Amino acid sequence: MPSPFHHVTVVGCGLIGGSFALASRRLEEVERVVVTDRDPEVRAAARRRGAADEVVADIGPAVRDADLVLVAVPVAVIPEVARTVIESTHHDVVITDVGSVKTQSVREIEDYLEEYVNQGDPSIHFLGGHPMCGSEEAGLAGADPALFQGATWILTPTPASDAEVFNALAAHIRALGARVLAIDPATHDRIVAVASHLPQILASTLADEAGAAARASGDGVLAVTAGGFRDLTRIAASDPDLWTGILAHNRSAVADVLESFRRRLTDFHEAVREGDWSAVRHRLVQGREARRRLPTGEPVTDLVDVVVPIPDRPGMLAEVTTVLGTAGINIEDVAIRPAGEDVRGALVLAVAGRGTAARARDLLAERGFDGHLEAR
Amino acid sequence: MPSPFHHVTVVGCGLIGGSFALASRRLEEVERVVVTDRDPEVRAAARRRGAADEVVADIGPAVRDADLVLVAVPVAVIPEVARTVIESTHHDVVITDVGSVKTQSVREIEDYLEEYVNQGDPSIHFLGGHPMCGSEEAGLAGADPALFQGATWILTPTPASDAEVFNALAAHIRALGARVLAIDPATHDRIVAVASHLPQILASTLADEAGAAARASGDGVLAVTAGGFRDLTRIAASDPDLWTGILAHNRSAVADVLESFRRRLTDFHEAVREGDWSAVRHRLVQGREARRRLPTGEPVTDLVDVVVPIPDRPGMLAEVTTVLGTAGINIEDVAIRPAGEDVRGALVLAVAGRGTAARARDLLAERGFDGHLEAR
Repeated sequence: MPSPFHHVTVVGCGLIGGSFALASRRLEEVERVVVTDRDPEVRAAARRRGAADEVVADIGPAVRDADLVLVAVPVAVIPEVARTVIESTHHDVVITDVGSVKTQSVREIEDYLEEYVNQGDPSIHFLGGHPMCGSEEAGLAGADPALFQGATWILTPTPASDAEVFNALAAHIRALGARVLAIDPATHDRIVAVASHLPQILASTLADEAGAAARASGDGVLAVTAGGFRDLTRIAASDPDLWTGILAHNRSAVADVLESFRRRLTDFHEAVREGDWSAVRHRLVQGREARRRLPTGEPVTDLVDVVVPIPDRPGMLAEVTTVLGTAGINIEDVAIRPAGEDVRGALVLAVAGRGTAARARDLLAERGFDGHLEAR
Repeated sequence: MPSPFHHVTVVGCGLIGGSFALASRRLEEVERVVVTDRDPEVRAAARRRGAADEVVADIGPAVRDADLVLVAVPVAVIPEVARTVIESTHHDVVITDVGSVKTQSVREIEDYLEEYVNQGDPSIHFLGGHPMCGSEEAGLAGADPALFQGATWILTPTPASDAEVFNALAAHIRALGARVLAIDPATHDRIVAVASHLPQILASTLADEAGAAARASGDGVLAVTAGGFRDLTRIAASDPDLWTGILAHNRSAVADVLESFRRRLTDFHEAVREGDWSAVRHRLVQGREARRRLPTGEPVTDLVDVVVPIPDRPGMLAEVTTVLGTAGINIEDVAIRPAGEDVRGALVLAVAGRGTAARARDLLAERGFDGHLEAR
């Protein structure tokens, strides 16, 4: 499915926003890309870079005619910026964001939108998102239309989310080369605490440890660092302000995961101190097994539909897709099959390969959704 | 200075041994490369790969005529293999190794050699080494003659080490494309605990943590891992047996560094829990500063000699070169200037650039060695 959007506006032209604008310009269906950023230097750079058809200073005129708006600003200001977007748009529009932490900002935006929609405009939709792309090379300078190729782009549906909106946004994201994984906001925040926030803390703390050792006894410790150390500390070069904001917004999940990691590291330490080498070896083996289980990002070949009959009530999309996302199953396509005279309505989720589809069906059955598979 | 060695023997044909043999074969001065490995399959692979002029099963005939022997076996068996090499050689020979931990094995080999030399062969020399190259791709299959290009190769001189032997071995290593850093064995072991062993433990423990999260709530946590997580856990794929041996041999330094890291991580955790975001930011900034100080491996241009007058007593080489190595200063060349009628003997250490040379001179002055600089 090609992108259904024709007029894309990006608010905030950093690494992600700039890459999204550049990539969206390359899509045939997209007729117009507008970028807005409050920093005049960034706007000038966006013009030089050819990031958009138009680069404007204010959010209002930038989003007025858009049918897709990406809010790509730091997590702390997402609700405020989203509110301005909602108030400025005149059009059927899907608004999404790229915040690394979701629970709080998604709730604030949905609350505001519900109030706003109740006042008379049901055609404004919000669906939170989080593209999992490198962040250590910050700013428009690092922007690249190929940034999303092969990346996982998380969407965070809630009971308020609409399946058509989900599918439209997912189609645009897939057109940029990313794969879509759906997880509810709270599960997302717990998962990224392990997969993204803990690695950042470890990278920074390891670099800090080596820096302290160098201050104490000389730069030799830095000079002997080989590939492993360099790999582990690469993201220690990330923007401290950006990351302080991210950690602050995910405080409780980050604190939990640090607690768990510290316990694990303490056990490792004990094993070394006591010379329990079989325990040390066991932990190294466990780490290797987990590393080997990382998905390899193979290209999608045969799609299989998982058809889940659903009662026609809101919230099903988030519930069903989160079951798959939590298990790491990408959703390649989603559609609503409407109820007919003798047929119940169904959610049709396309996933890659029969094995994955069978796993999806079984996971859904465990949650009380009795689906079946259909080849395409 | 070209390599002064003509007949190189490699004992143990894994990643490092295989790469060393392949790279040494490419040197014009080297007439003959012999490889020995106790595993017949590895020997067959070494023959297929063209790793050596001759591949033999037994250490004795392999090392008999060598003037340089590289012992590239797991750290636990280095002293035993080195002993066999010493007993088998008939020739003026320099023996070195590639163990990731030095104190214990260097002491054992030197003790044995002193005994042996006292029995009548003063032409057998040992100088420990440790090339800092990637290790997650184990075995001859990963061997590459370019493996050492741009890498740091640590040599670990002791009071028993000879400056001529140091320089000869360093010349061979430089001919393979590596840069030489000299550090005494005990300092080496403390430094690699931070720069290499701690990163391995963190990579494995992080992968283990994510694996446990995936077992508890689904593979989504693995599916959303982006570049940062993948970078941090790449070396978690390393050989658990190899690493158990390395950690066991550096137990006390590793336990110390884990203690220090755990304290640092606990402070980070406290800051997150208490919402002390300026403390969190400070730690992220510290990490970034340290990361930025990693040497970039710029090519060596102008060499400057640091000339250090020395009393003619053993142990000076190790003492002086370790001062530089601990500060992260590579030694590009070293020579002895003999004492003349009106001149004191001197150690001449070439380093890259006048700024580095001045820093080396100042560091040596702090330790009571009054050197001066000479342009080449």
